[in-house]
Amino acid sequence: MIDQNVHDFLARQPAGVLATTRPDGTVRQSVVYFALDGDRVLISTEPGRAKAKDVQRTGRASLCVIGGASPYPSVTLEGAARIRSAGIGADTARVWSRIGGQSVEPLSDAELAAMNRVVLEITVERVYGASYLESTS
Amino acid sequence: MIDQNVHDFLARQPAGVLATTRPDGTVRQSVVYFALDGDRVLISTEPGRAKAKDVQRTGRASLCVIGGASPYPSVTLEGAARIRSAGIGADTARVWSRIGGQSVEPLSDAELAAMNRVVLEITVERVYGASYLESTS
Repeated sequence: MIDQNVHDFLARQPAGVLATTRPDGTVRQSVVYFALDGDRVLISTEPGRAKAKDVQRTGRASLCVIGGASPYPSVTLEGAARIRSAGIGADTARVWSRIGGQSVEPLSDAELAAMNRVVLEITVERVYGASYLESTS
Repeated sequence: MIDQNVHDFLARQPAGVLATTRPDGTVRQSVVYFALDGDRVLISTEPGRAKAKDVQRTGRASLCVIGGASPYPSVTLEGAARIRSAGIGADTARVWSRIGGQSVEPLSDAELAAMNRVVLEITVERVYGASYLESTS
């Protein structure tokens, strides 16, 4: 599903644009840090955030990742999505390690619950729009 | 609607992530070059492209613009959208000048029609998610 070129590009880009669908059917977009693990896109968020509620309601999300300079390498991943609060220590650490660029020690579910953190997980079903992925920018 | 900080950030960033809604209600995302003119976001595309058809059908679009490096400055603009093929010379030149970084001479509507170009125009009704816009990245 996720080929090596896409995988390597995503490894260099820790942030992307998440899109979900609002209750009225319009699109909501926001910037998120993410990690990729196999065919899962992982995002750390709070259960009360609009994007989390959209995912709870619709069961879907899309992530478009764009490089920082011309020719703007990019790819979009989308699929079924859900909000998880159990067994999220390792996945949350994966995302946080992308923010700081260094390894983060996993916390327990209880610690993450106290911090009001959940994982928004997309199971990637479709990869499209891959462009200029071998660019260095 | 579009304040100075947002305006200045968008002037530095010629590309963003366009989101539209597919016939089945799911989100389509793609990277586009854009220009801003007042409260209008301008994108040059082809009438047969999926994003253009989505806009024809739904009358809406969203653009999220993200900077190229941490802390990933960003902002999302959304609103009513339409596909234009008349009087699009100046607007198309605005977009193309952002791609190459230098002024482009406007073409006539007939010339643009022969090149199969239309303008996807968003009238910005909402600006949200503005973060770290004064960052230099």
